[in-house]
Amino acid sequence: MSFDWSCPLPILDTDRILVGHGSGGKLTQRLLERHILPALDNPFLRPLDDQAILPPSLGEKIAFTTDSYVVSPIFFPGGDIGSLAVHGTVNDLVVGGARPIALSLSLILEEGLPLSTLDRILASIREAADRAEVPIVTGDTKVVEKGCADQIFINTAGIGLVPPGLRLGASRVEPGDEILVSGPIGDHGIAILALREGLELEGEVQSDTAPLGSLVRAILDACPEVHAMRDPTRGGVAASLVEIATRQNVGIEIDAEAIPVRDAVRGACELFGLDPLLVANEGKLLVFVPGEESEAVLAAMRAHPLGRDAVRIGRVCAEHRGLVVVRTAVGGRRILDLPFAEQLPRIC
Amino acid sequence: MSFDWSCPLPILDTDRILVGHGSGGKLTQRLLERHILPALDNPFLRPLDDQAILPPSLGEKIAFTTDSYVVSPIFFPGGDIGSLAVHGTVNDLVVGGARPIALSLSLILEEGLPLSTLDRILASIREAADRAEVPIVTGDTKVVEKGCADQIFINTAGIGLVPPGLRLGASRVEPGDEILVSGPIGDHGIAILALREGLELEGEVQSDTAPLGSLVRAILDACPEVHAMRDPTRGGVAASLVEIATRQNVGIEIDAEAIPVRDAVRGACELFGLDPLLVANEGKLLVFVPGEESEAVLAAMRAHPLGRDAVRIGRVCAEHRGLVVVRTAVGGRRILDLPFAEQLPRIC
Repeated sequence: MSFDWSCPLPILDTDRILVGHGSGGKLTQRLLERHILPALDNPFLRPLDDQAILPPSLGEKIAFTTDSYVVSPIFFPGGDIGSLAVHGTVNDLVVGGARPIALSLSLILEEGLPLSTLDRILASIREAADRAEVPIVTGDTKVVEKGCADQIFINTAGIGLVPPGLRLGASRVEPGDEILVSGPIGDHGIAILALREGLELEGEVQSDTAPLGSLVRAILDACPEVHAMRDPTRGGVAASLVEIATRQNVGIEIDAEAIPVRDAVRGACELFGLDPLLVANEGKLLVFVPGEESEAVLAAMRAHPLGRDAVRIGRVCAEHRGLVVVRTAVGGRRILDLPFAEQLPRIC
Repeated sequence: MSFDWSCPLPILDTDRILVGHGSGGKLTQRLLERHILPALDNPFLRPLDDQAILPPSLGEKIAFTTDSYVVSPIFFPGGDIGSLAVHGTVNDLVVGGARPIALSLSLILEEGLPLSTLDRILASIREAADRAEVPIVTGDTKVVEKGCADQIFINTAGIGLVPPGLRLGASRVEPGDEILVSGPIGDHGIAILALREGLELEGEVQSDTAPLGSLVRAILDACPEVHAMRDPTRGGVAASLVEIATRQNVGIEIDAEAIPVRDAVRGACELFGLDPLLVANEGKLLVFVPGEESEAVLAAMRAHPLGRDAVRIGRVCAEHRGLVVVRTAVGGRRILDLPFAEQLPRIC
């Protein structure tokens, strides 16, 4: 318990987060007015009512998603917890065919966090939101005592609008679909791993964190008949494939040779005994598309900077329903299963 | 770093949260299938795509809000962190005149949290969501290592729809408005304080945590001309009043004698040197209404179980713009100001 709310003025000159920054008092106002609002400013956020008011959806369905981010460390090659929190939630919307229209931002700060660190993360959030063309319209800040959190946790929720008639989802995946991936996998997970372990990789590996909206738009323009898209984050490509095979009761066949993996990522995976299929991505797209449309979709993906290295990695089949099977070049087959627990904790 | 993802089956029989429950592997699936989804089940949540898809808003504006909850302790008289997380976000929507249509739920769990504790909180979340008539349509679960969080943090974001023509907000508050409150203030903050300090109060004080949707509907049915409503949580009634006086540049006058405070709450406030106006509420409503409508609104509030003790506590005026002035019975006046920092940390 702290009752020092009548503490003297110098407290306002602190360069670190205090428990009082979460109190609803003057320190909270100061944090909002000097740090959070200037970084995120936009017309929806400005009224500062308890809720943001957005225009009606005019016949478009409303998509809604949320994710909390606890990645450690909070800064890493290619990004930080702030850009990750924006891209991750934007990507969960766009893979459903939605155009993001608004994000919320909720911060849980640990007492003692340098305000300069917060400012750097807020600037990154703003830059990522601008790149994804979506405003942050509402937010919240809580502070917990030192030792009750780990620097900063971020929640973003997002609203998007889905054009009438567009229907994308796991339930549409069916035998005959081909499976495409937008580029090399495992970059994000290995970038975090290398940083944590102080690992020197041949060629720096950066997180692939990126907003996928414009890539998805290019794909849907080329082929509105895409069945489903996934953003293979935690649990990697494997988690997305196993989930769809199980829930839709379809077979999935993956060509081991076709899976794109950077040399440095493959090397790190071998060193740590990791399967690249299980390593997290934060800016890759899995696409399930009717076989006859896959060339057109691949061409559209390759014409986009985030899909230059797009390839076909497998197909959906009517055999071995519920299972994902990986075929090797020499004809070997293995069933792809999820690990019981953690490969890399706090990857996002 | 933990690589024991090939750990033996008994790990699945754990009665506590493990880091692996946040991995995207089998433990995550198990947590979802056995604990989270059964507790929250509804048709929007069931597809388990990366985003929930809701129907179009058909001309109604979309309200959007978010809050993270870090209250300590997580169970308290009258509620728990789960019901609080639902009511708080619902209330942020309804005070804007919105009808809540969907909530998201994002959990940050500390390794070691008993699954029985999680189940109890999930049941409370479900009950609160049912009472507020809003489904939880999308969610996320993260796990951090022991010592990197404090048992459980919850984020809820919410979407609501605002009927065309309805416009509620601080910007409509103007001189001549009267200020009503739905009942005695300070219950939530003092319930938490008493629990933390092991304080025996005369007559148990319970948190007032409650969903305010039906009370707001009753008010708007009686008087669509209400100017603004506030749910005075962190920082109490004072924070809401000071914010509106400052931002709208109006004067606010409060009658000290009119402020409803339970005897036990007043006693605890005296003991700890707290001003009840600054203590958090989680189920009270402040209403700003044109003077000529205030009797009708008070009658509507008093006819509702959550507004039985509604009273007029003050008015908006053209004098002392930007300031909230509290008048005492004997004619004394004091300016109501916010504390610099924390009265009661982690109150919500």
